[in-house]
Amino acid sequence: MKNEISIGLLGLGTVGSGVAKILQQHQQDLHHKLGVQVSIKKVLVRNNNKERLSILDPNVFTTDIDEILNDSSLDIIVEVMGGMGEAKRAIEEALKAGKQVVTANKDVMAEYGHDLLKLADEQKCDLFYEASVAGGIPIIRTLEDGLASDRISSLMGIVNGTTNFILTKMKKENMSYEKALAEATKLGYAEADPSADVDGLDAARKMVILSSLAFSTEVHIDDVLVRGMSEIQDGDLEMANNFGYTMKMVGSSKKDEDGIEVAVEPIFLANSHPLASVNNEFNAVYIYGDAVGETMLYGPGAGSLPTATSVVSDIIAACRNLLLEVNGKRVHSAQHERVIKPESSRFAKYFHRLLVKDEVGVLSKLTAIYSKHGASLQSVMQHPAAQEGQAELVFLTHQISRQQHLDVLNDLAGTASVISHYRIEGEETA
Amino acid sequence: MKNEISIGLLGLGTVGSGVAKILQQHQQDLHHKLGVQVSIKKVLVRNNNKERLSILDPNVFTTDIDEILNDSSLDIIVEVMGGMGEAKRAIEEALKAGKQVVTANKDVMAEYGHDLLKLADEQKCDLFYEASVAGGIPIIRTLEDGLASDRISSLMGIVNGTTNFILTKMKKENMSYEKALAEATKLGYAEADPSADVDGLDAARKMVILSSLAFSTEVHIDDVLVRGMSEIQDGDLEMANNFGYTMKMVGSSKKDEDGIEVAVEPIFLANSHPLASVNNEFNAVYIYGDAVGETMLYGPGAGSLPTATSVVSDIIAACRNLLLEVNGKRVHSAQHERVIKPESSRFAKYFHRLLVKDEVGVLSKLTAIYSKHGASLQSVMQHPAAQEGQAELVFLTHQISRQQHLDVLNDLAGTASVISHYRIEGEETA
Repeated sequence: MKNEISIGLLGLGTVGSGVAKILQQHQQDLHHKLGVQVSIKKVLVRNNNKERLSILDPNVFTTDIDEILNDSSLDIIVEVMGGMGEAKRAIEEALKAGKQVVTANKDVMAEYGHDLLKLADEQKCDLFYEASVAGGIPIIRTLEDGLASDRISSLMGIVNGTTNFILTKMKKENMSYEKALAEATKLGYAEADPSADVDGLDAARKMVILSSLAFSTEVHIDDVLVRGMSEIQDGDLEMANNFGYTMKMVGSSKKDEDGIEVAVEPIFLANSHPLASVNNEFNAVYIYGDAVGETMLYGPGAGSLPTATSVVSDIIAACRNLLLEVNGKRVHSAQHERVIKPESSRFAKYFHRLLVKDEVGVLSKLTAIYSKHGASLQSVMQHPAAQEGQAELVFLTHQISRQQHLDVLNDLAGTASVISHYRIEGEETA
Repeated sequence: MKNEISIGLLGLGTVGSGVAKILQQHQQDLHHKLGVQVSIKKVLVRNNNKERLSILDPNVFTTDIDEILNDSSLDIIVEVMGGMGEAKRAIEEALKAGKQVVTANKDVMAEYGHDLLKLADEQKCDLFYEASVAGGIPIIRTLEDGLASDRISSLMGIVNGTTNFILTKMKKENMSYEKALAEATKLGYAEADPSADVDGLDAARKMVILSSLAFSTEVHIDDVLVRGMSEIQDGDLEMANNFGYTMKMVGSSKKDEDGIEVAVEPIFLANSHPLASVNNEFNAVYIYGDAVGETMLYGPGAGSLPTATSVVSDIIAACRNLLLEVNGKRVHSAQHERVIKPESSRFAKYFHRLLVKDEVGVLSKLTAIYSKHGASLQSVMQHPAAQEGQAELVFLTHQISRQQHLDVLNDLAGTASVISHYRIEGEETA
């Protein structure tokens, strides 16, 4: 039996230095839990002259990734360097060399997860990626183990802290989008270039990872319907409030006999829904299982220590498996064929906000368009518009297909201009 | 390698029949996940003439527990019979015979958990008990695995669905305690004898299990401070609302260098706290970890299928371990000595509601008592009392020790009668 487990750490940024700190601080606990020493033996850094983390031996640093990948004495490779190409290559090489791999890289896992997990399976190696989604929340493990005995029928998540922070500030403090984004940047929640967050791409990648696991099928990034924060118009948040909803950027994923549907978009979420009270930079994932019913996991979605905690949990799991010599035994493979639902069988309620000329007969023209497409309406409201001679109309539909929704929007264009439109989730309508 | 895993099921009540149904429905998935057949071979029932679950082979039923415990062909014993003495004996015998055990029995685990886990350790057998706390929520696994790399400093839980349902109805629908309890009974959330729920014993047992695990130490039921629903007086819920709090029955458990403190009691919980919006029969556990910060798990606390889902997750974990021949390898043992904090180092804010004679000088007498014990006050409010010549006074303290709180209450008795008093958790004070 081994008496030491050696780790190669790729990257010493926010997450990497958190991992080093936690491993250092918990050395005694870990030794007790595992019965062996867990040590960081090599660390990849970008620039060898920059100041190093003082808790690490000065001899562990290298700028040459291959020095780590080719080191046969390392048991576990921890990839926290980020990015795509080199990170993917590193994971691949490590698995091919029979090493266990822990990664926090959602980009690589969303894009190449299936291939990499297949490779890990063939190599009888662990490939753990808890930290790739919702930093401090053990959602991957919960989907794999905790709910192993249940069939999951839907999954909704606030999985991007930046956009949730912005929407919370806009709602609670009446802040403008620009000011809220600036504050998110100042507090370190938003990147210098926030487009992956605000456009929904970051959340879409996380939903690819979660949906693949929850439904045991392949899901590709192109399968995700993505709408970003730029869809939100002035006054939309107030309208959501008036009807008993909260505007949230939500990733959702559903499965039934027709296939799966995955989307990331700003939606009108009923205030009574558990996700509606998830505020600020927090993340949460709401799971609906056939047997268990509704469960939700809530916690920090990012940050050095929360994310590093998930990485270290994966390291511990890999260590245990190493000691028991059972690595690569988790069942990851996609059991079910990938079937994406057509627009005509994705059902939801919708909110449509329109600007029209305020003239006799306009309402009947518009409602005729809904009728034509068999889209039944729950309510219609008229508001005075900013400009004279115009009116704002709000239509809330009953359950209709996304195809009906798109057909209606398309036909409305002749008579009205569509200010904004959202999917509605949950129950309330005031 | 085995090609079949045989289960003996002790009990076919609400949870037991749920387990049988889930195993039946997921047979194909399970076979795929594990590569073997998982079959219920024997079922203990109370009365052999009662109607049986039709999905089970009529030959599996027995009323003789020893027929199951002595059957060497069974791999896993699933104890869902409830109760104390016989259930404990069954778990013990099964472990002694080298069988894996899954139990949903919080009473046995709270009382004998440490001994049984030690026995399981010695026997190199699994003893899993996910379903013993918060039915559908994978809290045990999360504490064991997901947060393995973090030091947990506090834990708060709404772990009794009955009392949470009652308090929700009282708050949201202005229902009386009696009416809310009657509705809980009608809906099957409360037992015929609800005393274990409303007196806090049920929650206290769950807190023993969670605290032992979170802090890796022994915790006994007598270590838990327990106050029941009967502490709540007319008007207390409204007062909580007025100050920005929600009255909740909360189990709390904290650890610092002075030791641990565990309590179950109705408290004033700040509305902004994630637990404050956990309503109806739902359960949730809020965990504060040094590194990860705050996380919360939310879900159904009881019910046939949610609880059975947790049992089946444990069965799957035991099956995997059987196939890998690594049962009994989870680390359960109490690492830390059991140190319970004295009253003098348990700090909190408190709410005191007093009835006094409405006469000159009473307020200064009372505040002198707080001063005498060094208990600093955050605010004092006077309300008219129901009876003429009397007044109600509300004192909100700053952080004081529980010893100070008790000393003050004791000394107040000469001048005022104490209507009610609660610990305050969270931030708000209106």
